[in-house]
Amino acid sequence: MTKAIDKMAKKYKRNDTEINTVCSHKGPRTIESSYEGSLVAEGVLKYVITGNKEDYDAIIIACYSDVHLQSAREISNIPVYGIAESSMHFASILGYKFSIVTVLERSRPLFEKLVISYGLQDRCASISTTSVSVDDLEKDPSITRSILTEAGKKAIKEDGAEVICLGCAGMCELDKPIEKELGVPVLDSVVCAVKFAEAFYDYGLNMSKIKAYKMPIPKEMKNMTEFE
Amino acid sequence: MTKAIDKMAKKYKRNDTEINTVCSHKGPRTIESSYEGSLVAEGVLKYVITGNKEDYDAIIIACYSDVHLQSAREISNIPVYGIAESSMHFASILGYKFSIVTVLERSRPLFEKLVISYGLQDRCASISTTSVSVDDLEKDPSITRSILTEAGKKAIKEDGAEVICLGCAGMCELDKPIEKELGVPVLDSVVCAVKFAEAFYDYGLNMSKIKAYKMPIPKEMKNMTEFE
Amino acid sequence: MTKAIDKMAKKYKRNDTEINTVCSHKGPRTIESSYEGSLVAEGVLKYVITGNKEDYDAIIIACYSDVHLQSAREISNIPVYGIAESSMHFASILGYKFSIVTVLERSRPLFEKLVISYGLQDRCASISTTSVSVDDLEKDPSITRSILTEAGKKAIKEDGAEVICLGCAGMCELDKPIEKELGVPVLDSVVCAVKFAEAFYDYGLNMSKIKAYKMPIPKEMKNMTEFE
Amino acid sequence: MTKAIDKMAKKYKRNDTEINTVCSHKGPRTIESSYEGSLVAEGVLKYVITGNKEDYDAIIIACYSDVHLQSAREISNIPVYGIAESSMHFASILGYKFSIVTVLERSRPLFEKLVISYGLQDRCASISTTSVSVDDLEKDPSITRSILTEAGKKAIKEDGAEVICLGCAGMCELDKPIEKELGVPVLDSVVCAVKFAEAFYDYGLNMSKIKAYKMPIPKEMKNMTEFE
Amino acid sequence: MTKAIDKMAKKYKRNDTEINTVCSHKGPRTIESSYEGSLVAEGVLKYVITGNKEDYDAIIIACYSDVHLQSAREISNIPVYGIAESSMHFASILGYKFSIVTVLERSRPLFEKLVISYGLQDRCASISTTSVSVDDLEKDPSITRSILTEAGKKAIKEDGAEVICLGCAGMCELDKPIEKELGVPVLDSVVCAVKFAEAFYDYGLNMSKIKAYKMPIPKEMKNMTEFE
Amino acid sequence: MTKAIDKMAKKYKRNDTEINTVCSHKGPRTIESSYEGSLVAEGVLKYVITGNKEDYDAIIIACYSDVHLQSAREISNIPVYGIAESSMHFASILGYKFSIVTVLERSRPLFEKLVISYGLQDRCASISTTSVSVDDLEKDPSITRSILTEAGKKAIKEDGAEVICLGCAGMCELDKPIEKELGVPVLDSVVCAVKFAEAFYDYGLNMSKIKAYKMPIPKEMKNMTEFE
Repeated sequence: MTKAIDKMAKKYKRNDTEINTVCSHKGPRTIESSYEGSLVAEGVLKYVITGNKEDYDAIIIACYSDVHLQSAREISNIPVYGIAESSMHFASILGYKFSIVTVLERSRPLFEKLVISYGLQDRCASISTTSVSVDDLEKDPSITRSILTEAGKKAIKEDGAEVICLGCAGMCELDKPIEKELGVPVLDSVVCAVKFAEAFYDYGLNMSKIKAYKMPIPKEMKNMTEFE
Repeated sequence: MTKAIDKMAKKYKRNDTEINTVCSHKGPRTIESSYEGSLVAEGVLKYVITGNKEDYDAIIIACYSDVHLQSAREISNIPVYGIAESSMHFASILGYKFSIVTVLERSRPLFEKLVISYGLQDRCASISTTSVSVDDLEKDPSITRSILTEAGKKAIKEDGAEVICLGCAGMCELDKPIEKELGVPVLDSVVCAVKFAEAFYDYGLNMSKIKAYKMPIPKEMKNMTEFE
Repeated sequence: MTKAIDKMAKKYKRNDTEINTVCSHKGPRTIESSYEGSLVAEGVLKYVITGNKEDYDAIIIACYSDVHLQSAREISNIPVYGIAESSMHFASILGYKFSIVTVLERSRPLFEKLVISYGLQDRCASISTTSVSVDDLEKDPSITRSILTEAGKKAIKEDGAEVICLGCAGMCELDKPIEKELGVPVLDSVVCAVKFAEAFYDYGLNMSKIKAYKMPIPKEMKNMTEFE
Repeated sequence: MTKAIDKMAKKYKRNDTEINTVCSHKGPRTIESSYEGSLVAEGVLKYVITGNKEDYDAIIIACYSDVHLQSAREISNIPVYGIAESSMHFASILGYKFSIVTVLERSRPLFEKLVISYGLQDRCASISTTSVSVDDLEKDPSITRSILTEAGKKAIKEDGAEVICLGCAGMCELDKPIEKELGVPVLDSVVCAVKFAEAFYDYGLNMSKIKAYKMPIPKEMKNMTEFE
Repeated sequence: MTKAIDKMAKKYKRNDTEINTVCSHKGPRTIESSYEGSLVAEGVLKYVITGNKEDYDAIIIACYSDVHLQSAREISNIPVYGIAESSMHFASILGYKFSIVTVLERSRPLFEKLVISYGLQDRCASISTTSVSVDDLEKDPSITRSILTEAGKKAIKEDGAEVICLGCAGMCELDKPIEKELGVPVLDSVVCAVKFAEAFYDYGLNMSKIKAYKMPIPKEMKNMTEFE
Repeated sequence: MTKAIDKMAKKYKRNDTEINTVCSHKGPRTIESSYEGSLVAEGVLKYVITGNKEDYDAIIIACYSDVHLQSAREISNIPVYGIAESSMHFASILGYKFSIVTVLERSRPLFEKLVISYGLQDRCASISTTSVSVDDLEKDPSITRSILTEAGKKAIKEDGAEVICLGCAGMCELDKPIEKELGVPVLDSVVCAVKFAEAFYDYGLNMSKIKAYKMPIPKEMKNMTEFE
């Protein structure tokens, strides 16, 4: 999965952009529930701290639940991007309504809340879940591709989607082939985040640090001094 | 803080209800940011697992950010209550509009998202932040009480609040004194959660386990086998 | 119908709770339209006045349209509960989306407005009407039960419901059998109101009397002096 | 009050329109609460039945709470108009945002729910309450006029109102004088309803009777056979 | 098309109303896209200027996209009506939910934005597009009528529509025949605008000119001095 | 104004991006009303056609009303960007709430509708109008800068803004100086559109052409054959 993400992150980057893809040192193999998302907190936030110390220009959290995005932004002095947030903003510009084509049905409430938290519910035609689990994505790419294509067709025909967001970080190189079949823009969310990171860098932008993403007051931590 | 929560949890409980109040074994002293909320993931979820193993009838997460509430519900076969969610539903019945009177301004976006995620934005008159930090709450109760009372008066007068939710777990025994001064219902959120837990127990209810709170598929965890 | 309501009200009550179930002295046999709801105004409000005079601790209006709930709250110094409002708040905690399974299609606009007036439209997956009239409920409980079960299954499968509210006061003892078949929480609304009444009593809460539920200014009444 | 309503109803009517203004045979002198609104149910609905029997072409309920409007529409085969609903639709066309200038603060939740039930919350800049009670309206018209004008000015300046709805049936002949002072359209709601009634009559329109305003199934009424 | 519009405009007008129907001197034959709407700007606005100069009492823009309605209102000292806006307000009074039955699917996003801009999204059950183009409307009225009737039936059955708005200016004299078949009110939008114009004229109303429809500051125009 | 826009468009562009800034051949000097926006239809759309013919890779409409954006997208086979849309999506990522600081109060309804049409109303803290007209922007940059800075401060303090969008195309090089004073990100909208154009180009994206932005059916145009 990390390799697949790395591949996509680098595929459309500018020449002078350097990307380093890392995997959490602890936590579940894949994230398909809120529970698993909670459990990668330390893994994700540790890398946010590292990224700030080692003079990176931006951080991308490559999980379509945008896990711990707000927490990461709070403690970061460099921009942090969520791949779901990035892809939904891209999609909002490419058409009037977008659909998220994603993995298992159990993720629907998670994604619904995500869409609402970005205020884009009026532009989201549907969240289209499939029988594919995150693990399946890697096992048989051609079956995955055909299932996602079918889901995309249905979203276009029945829900009015004009743009498709692939709702998982691991859907490596499926964007353009599915786009070809569907005849509408299909977005790989990792690419969207990379392009946002580059654009914001060029323009010299950083997150607003005065309220939602204000630095926490340093405080005593029980058994986790590395996060103080 | 844990003592204060325990005191309130027991104050209005029924005679045959037993309550056991515990504090996370790791994490920040207090939770005033999304970051600190993320970091108590393991602490909170470990007790959810314990609570299920030791045959408790219900679990309450006593932090007004309702941290990891959805994650907890996913892995629990007994009901899990959030104190913010509980108090907002109580408040919605007691008047047409409620306000949340709480700690520092930096929590506003967190609480706004929480209100929206419970779908109660049309009933919430305002989120009224103050100059009180979570630590201050314990240091000088009388000053805290007077600051919160003033914030409540303002919420009633300027924002149209008819009910006040005290937006922090540690506002021990401030509910009734402030209620007396304001002349409107004032809710301690821990009490609300306890009363919901008792009511649902009586009626034999459990969370719906078919979608949002469906049990995660067991999977391999790197360096955290206790959560597999 | 009154007997059925009395039975459910008492089924899950606490030992020290006393319940007295009464039927309006005038008005339609059942309430299935806004018109019939309007016509029970005097019947309902007379009992609210009586309930206040006779030192009851709370009043429940046992009709799923929550008829005259706001009016009752205005003239009452003790809490007044609506069964629809109570069940929807219970349902919002038990899952991410609930559906109301109810009687005839003609009630849909009434219930839609009710859901919106409680601000819970984002949590309500659907209002599922059936071919059952209020009268049918009593005539053949087994057919009623099977129709409601089917409607519940459809709401779960097609609308994404995770919790079912039985949308009528007279669906006596159908909650647990249907819950067993559907595998999701099924709520009898009368029980929900009783449990709210007990919980609020324990915590010493009363409705906010400063705005929405403020006591009307006494004024001259033509031909209805008992309501002055 | 009935005389004032009659005067306004006739002021801008077409020559061939006949208007008959009647007052409920029972109920409170004025309606300033939900409670008082509930109590005019029989009075209002009796006249709806009469209006249908006596071959009127339309019925207007002349109370800015649009009391029992849906109930009246259900049992009527001729159109029934609410004066609040009528004035808000007029106002929506005359400007981007309208405000309702009305009597006492206690009516705010009632009016807020009304605006939402008509789906016009995005066009309503504010509900501006005053110190005027319904009775005051008649006692001293010049003071009333100056209070309402001030409230209108404030709504324009602070809330962005471009149109003012006078939120009470008894604000007789205050529309044009206040309009002159404010420089924006000011609407008497009784006039708006009369003009809607005439327009719909010309076009041969009646309410849709298939769902929200479907005729109730005739049924037994305890102690109120005149409504069966 | 202009003839058809003229016919409907005059069909239900009052005896003392004079109507003059004109067609833009430049622009596309029909308007079925935002592009074509943009291109009639000069044609529409020229007639608004003429209408003001020649002492008309009101102007109606007879295109269901309400093209350039806000622009027209800004430069007009007499009321300007949109036929879509007019029909939706009529429909909102006639039933709880209305549907717009209209031409090609490509117009959906245009109409969706229109409904939202009037704030009536909660009352709009659906926008029902068909295989009929604007040109087809004139070619074979009986086929058009049967296609629209079918679309109306579907909107009633599947979407909950209680009122149908015919979403095109050229659906001449189809309203009453389709109304007869469907059993719900069916609105010709041109008629609705005429009736609004007459009603507002009687009541002496004009658009609010203080903000949304404020007169633009005269300014230099390159190559279009007639609009300065 | 065209020079100022050109300067900003080029300031943060990538080295290999070529930008050609043109001004409409006809229309008002500046756009501050919907009327003036309507009148540039032909001027804007002519350049969209030219841009497509001359093999440009993208088109930016540099007016903060995003005039004729949808129309332009319909007839374009290359992406078309609106500067308001672009800046609002940038702002949504940089903080939880953004404000638009802009010219005269009369633009408020225009901008409100724009924000809603992009579905970003939940992220927009306020639209802050000033006493500055578009012409003033050029006359005295230092006064303009100080007025906009004050408006920004107020938006941050009173409305909760965390990011400021400068709501006009001509606010050349005011972004970074005001950002320095305010301590929050301040966005020049022309730059945002350029960065979106580059990002989408890199990723090989085009607008979805199946519905909202579908190519209009070619049709006869009266007196404007160049647009057929």
